[in-house]
This record gives sequence, C-alpha cells and structure tokens, in this order.
Amino acid sequence: MIKTDIIIIGAGPVGLFTVFEAGLLKLRCHLIDALAEPGGQCAEIYPKKPIYDIPGFPSILARELIDNLMEQIKPFEPGFTLEETAIDILKKENNFIVSTKQGTKHIAPVVVIAGGLGVFIPRRPAIENIKAFENKGIDYIVKDPEKYRGKSIVISGGGDSALDWALYFANNVCKNVTIVHRSQQFRAHNDSVQKATDMTKEGKINMLLNAEVTTFKADDHIEAVSIKKKGKEDLEHIKCDYWLPLFGLTPKLGPIAKWGLEIEKNAIKVNNALDYSTNIPGIYAIGDVNTYQGKLKLILCGFHEAAIMMQSAFKRIYPEKNNVLKYTTVTGVAGFEK
Amino acid sequence: MIKTDIIIIGAGPVGLFTVFEAGLLKLRCHLIDALAEPGGQCAEIYPKKPIYDIPGFPSILARELIDNLMEQIKPFEPGFTLEETAIDILKKENNFIVSTKQGTKHIAPVVVIAGGLGVFIPRRPAIENIKAFENKGIDYIVKDPEKYRGKSIVISGGGDSALDWALYFANNVCKNVTIVHRSQQFRAHNDSVQKATDMTKEGKINMLLNAEVTTFKADDHIEAVSIKKKGKEDLEHIKCDYWLPLFGLTPKLGPIAKWGLEIEKNAIKVNNALDYSTNIPGIYAIGDVNTYQGKLKLILCGFHEAAIMMQSAFKRIYPEKNNVLKYTTVTGVAGFEK
Repeated sequence: MIKTDIIIIGAGPVGLFTVFEAGLLKLRCHLIDALAEPGGQCAEIYPKKPIYDIPGFPSILARELIDNLMEQIKPFEPGFTLEETAIDILKKENNFIVSTKQGTKHIAPVVVIAGGLGVFIPRRPAIENIKAFENKGIDYIVKDPEKYRGKSIVISGGGDSALDWALYFANNVCKNVTIVHRSQQFRAHNDSVQKATDMTKEGKINMLLNAEVTTFKADDHIEAVSIKKKGKEDLEHIKCDYWLPLFGLTPKLGPIAKWGLEIEKNAIKVNNALDYSTNIPGIYAIGDVNTYQGKLKLILCGFHEAAIMMQSAFKRIYPEKNNVLKYTTVTGVAGFEK
Repeated sequence: MIKTDIIIIGAGPVGLFTVFEAGLLKLRCHLIDALAEPGGQCAEIYPKKPIYDIPGFPSILARELIDNLMEQIKPFEPGFTLEETAIDILKKENNFIVSTKQGTKHIAPVVVIAGGLGVFIPRRPAIENIKAFENKGIDYIVKDPEKYRGKSIVISGGGDSALDWALYFANNVCKNVTIVHRSQQFRAHNDSVQKATDMTKEGKINMLLNAEVTTFKADDHIEAVSIKKKGKEDLEHIKCDYWLPLFGLTPKLGPIAKWGLEIEKNAIKVNNALDYSTNIPGIYAIGDVNTYQGKLKLILCGFHEAAIMMQSAFKRIYPEKNNVLKYTTVTGVAGFEK
C-alpha cells in the first residue's frame, strides 16, 4: 500500500503542476497514470506540436512543457504508478484507497482527479486485421513527425488533424503525401482547406476525394493501401510506407465515471466558486476532466485550479493549522526535510 | 480619443496576458499604466527576483517573465498609455470612457481592471528632507542589486524584505552591511532570522537592535546615517554609500476606488463563479486587484481569470456571434488582418 498525502490521478501537465502547489504546502503527492511516462496528451498525442497559449511562452513544444514541469516539481519528489489504470476507490475512515487494474493500492486523505479528457480511443477504420498492423505502418497519432521524413504516406480523414499533418508533411518532409477523404467537403479550417487545394494543384499533395481506403497490403509492415472511389468499381492501389487514418480520437472518462461523482457531458462537475471540489468531500477534479459554467479546457486554467484546490486540501488535511500563503519570490522553493 | 475593444488598466503580467487572450478572439486592447514601462510590480519592484511558481518555469526572473509576455502579445499590437494614471470612468451608451490624470481619453465597450495591488507607497521614515535624497543614496526598493556591489550599505527594517536583502548583500556582494532594527524581535521567517544571527556572529553583518536611524548626512549624495539606540543618549554614526529603509510598501487602490465598484479589503469584488465581472456590467477585474472567496494573489491565477473573462467580454461585444474556443496547437497564433 502506497501511503501519501495526495493521490493524483493523471500525470498530464495539470497533474504535474499540482505536485508543485502541494509541495509548497509541504504535502506529498503520488501520481497514477495509464501511460508509460508522465505528460498525458502533451507527451502522448502531440509532443512535437508547439503550444502558444501557455503564459510566458510565446511558443513551447508540448514535450518541453512537460520536461519543464518535471524539473519544477523535482524538489517535491513525487511518486509515480505508471502504466496502471486507476479503477477503484474506497473510502476508509478519513482516507481513500485507490486501486489500479494491475492491483497497486494507494492510500491518502485527498484524491485529485486530473485525468484530462480521459483515455483516447482512436476511431479505427472497419478493416479486418487492422489491429495487427498498428505500429507496423498504421498510426492513428503522429507522435514524432521525423519518423515519416522521406517516406511515402497516405492520410485518411477530412478534419483538422488530417489536413494539418498533410500540409506539414507535404512541405518537404515526406516523399509523397496522399489524402484520402470520403466526402468532397472538409470539416476543417477554411485556411487549411485552401492551402491543401493549392498544394494539390502544385502537385505536392495527391488528393483523392469521395474515396476510402478499403484494404491494405502488408506482410511484416504495410506496403500499400487500396482505395475505392465512389461510383467506381476498380480499386486504386497506392504504395506507401505509412498509412495514417486520422479520424480523430474519442476521449473516454473510463472507470472514474463509476465512482459516484456527479458527471455532466463526460466531465466531472465541480464547485468552481470555491475549491474545485466534487460532490464527494475529499475528492477534487481539475483540468480538462472537470466542468462548470464557463469552463475552458485550457492547460493554464488547470494550473489555477490546482493552486486553488490545494489550499482547500491543506485545510482538510490539517484543519487545525493556519496556512498563510507564501510567495516563492520571498521564500524560494525548498523540498521536504529528510 | 483612443478607441479600442478592451481598455486594460494595469500593464503588469496579468494585464499583458489579457491582450493575448483578447487577440485570440480578434479583440484589440489598449493598456493604461502609471509606470513608465510595462511590467507592473515585476518590472518596478522585483525585476531581478526569481519567481518559482509560474507553471513551466522552474525559475524565471520577474523581468524575463515580462519580456516573454511582451513577445507573446506582439502579434496583437496592443496600444499603451504609459506614465499616466487612470482616474475617471464615464459610461456613454454601450461604451466606457476612461480618462487619465494627464488628460488622455480612451473609449471601449469593455474595461478590464488588472491593476495589481495598486500603487505602492513606501513607508517613509519621518525624517526631515528625506524626499530630497530619494534616488540619491536612499532607496525604498531594491530594483537592481548590482548597483550596491562593493558598497557600504545600511538597511533599516525587521521584516522579510529587510532580512532577505541583508543576507543577499552580506554574501560577498557589499563591502559592509548594517541592519538597523527598532525592536529585538523580527517579523520574518525563522530561517532568515537564524541566518542573519549566524552571519552577525561571523562578522559579515553588523546588526544594531533596539536602534533607529534618526538623521543622515548628505551633500549631493548620502554619506552616513546617525543611529539612536534605545536608552542611550549618544548617536552612533555609520558611513555608508546607501541607506535602504525597507519598512515595506503600502499598496493603494488609488482613484479606481471611487468608480462605484464594490470594494472589499482594498480589492474589487468579482463573480468568480462566472466571469470575474464586477458589479458594473462591462467592467471586469482580474489578478491581484480582485477578491472572492478563496482568492489567491498569484500571477498564475490572474492568467486563468484573463482567459475566462475574455470569453464573457467577447459575448458582450458580439452578442450575436457564436464563439468557439480554438486551440493554439491547432490554429497557431495570427495577428490582425491589415
């Protein structure tokens, strides 16, 4: 049984910063995350994408933000239970016991859910055997664009993600870029649609509309995809090193949804007027996982929510202590006494 | 008359970041600040102090944070009215007209007060002629510690600021450091008091307790201070290049306090459950200047407040438009069309 002051479910940017706010109040944290490394969406889905709206950073790669946060919380020595999914919570006197699917148990008086949008489930094309070739040439997420440099790729999809990456890869990154889209209309920013149309005219993108990948050829690794155009019988075969079906990722709240928390629109309702507490005293929800009137799913909002909720958690853990807000500019940042 | 979408009163870190959030929604901003340059407290009071609690920065100098924010908002071309104090506000149909003491007028449908703790008034020792030697050897704020390198200094005061700077300067920065404090008890962190006591024993600090600077000797620049010890008749004279009376700065809300806004504890009450609006529709207050239950006067909280209030301001300015939150990771950051 892992014993700590605060169990944090979710090791994305908001979960990580929560460790910092706890540490300033001399509270220890332990984080649980289903992914193999800290960082959440930032590390898993868009590590190489620049973020422009983190205050103080005109631009920062998602991966860098995570690295910085890990550095920032280092003095507070957080514990991690990684690659394990929190599935169960049990109230025991003044504590909660959180268990993972893999059997690890954690005990603490306060639980903070910073689970982001939950687990991301890719929308898979309905093609037999597709699962067997995931990571063997079929990718639903572009984690590292460098992987595709000099390669021939086929992208399926007509949303922002499909178009953004097609534009990126067609710009002297990949050898060949084909977009396959079922309709003639895109569900993307006009800007991107215009650019993709222009690049198609320039011969930099091969755009197949009213078309769909119906099968693929693969032995150990994908070699080609077969495309069916609307109203045509014959399939078109396109050789490629990678096929990226970018139909979007569906976030799922997962087992937390069954913990008795008040849920609204796939998110946990919290008291934003006070302390981001949920309907269960001692459980807080911050970042993209929570909802309230006017909620913005922005990383910077999660940071604020972490700071506010931690004051409330402190009072819950030490009702007798009078906590005075200290400024790091005055006191600096010290870790725990040994 | 300067016409804009949003008038921001206060060009500290929160006021500056507000320009960014407005810009994402294609709203233009104009900032008014009494200081000669943007940055507020960060630039004026502690430019060289590291801040440790800005998310994503394990440590950043206040000055750097301001530089970064200025860079971040550059695409949105904010206007500035600097070295002028906003003193008056007038509602005219759907607009507010904000006038400065110097006579500049600004008109916009939305006003955001991001005035921080207001204007900082140093607590001056009651010594005749002291004003004449401010900036001539008498400083109430340490803006650039390098200014004092190799010099002899006398610090008056017994709070954190006095002790922190004494410790800093005694550590191979200044030639001589004297602390003069009226009492025998300090109002500072135990840590700092202990360190100062240790350094006094080591001869690195000259500590005079139950003592007070009563006069100073100066011609063009300060040359010495005279100190009276409790119960003693004779004055002790100490030669010095600088005298720093660090008795603290009293923040004052200033003319804004008379605008009909609901004020509580020298701060403006806002609706934190919704949009950080004040009791006057169209006027918002964010950052250290506002108050609500559980308020934390942290820069990172002001950033969140700016993001949330801007959505509300957008709806107020364009009630018919349906604003969809856009992610900078998807759309990037574009300035205004020319």
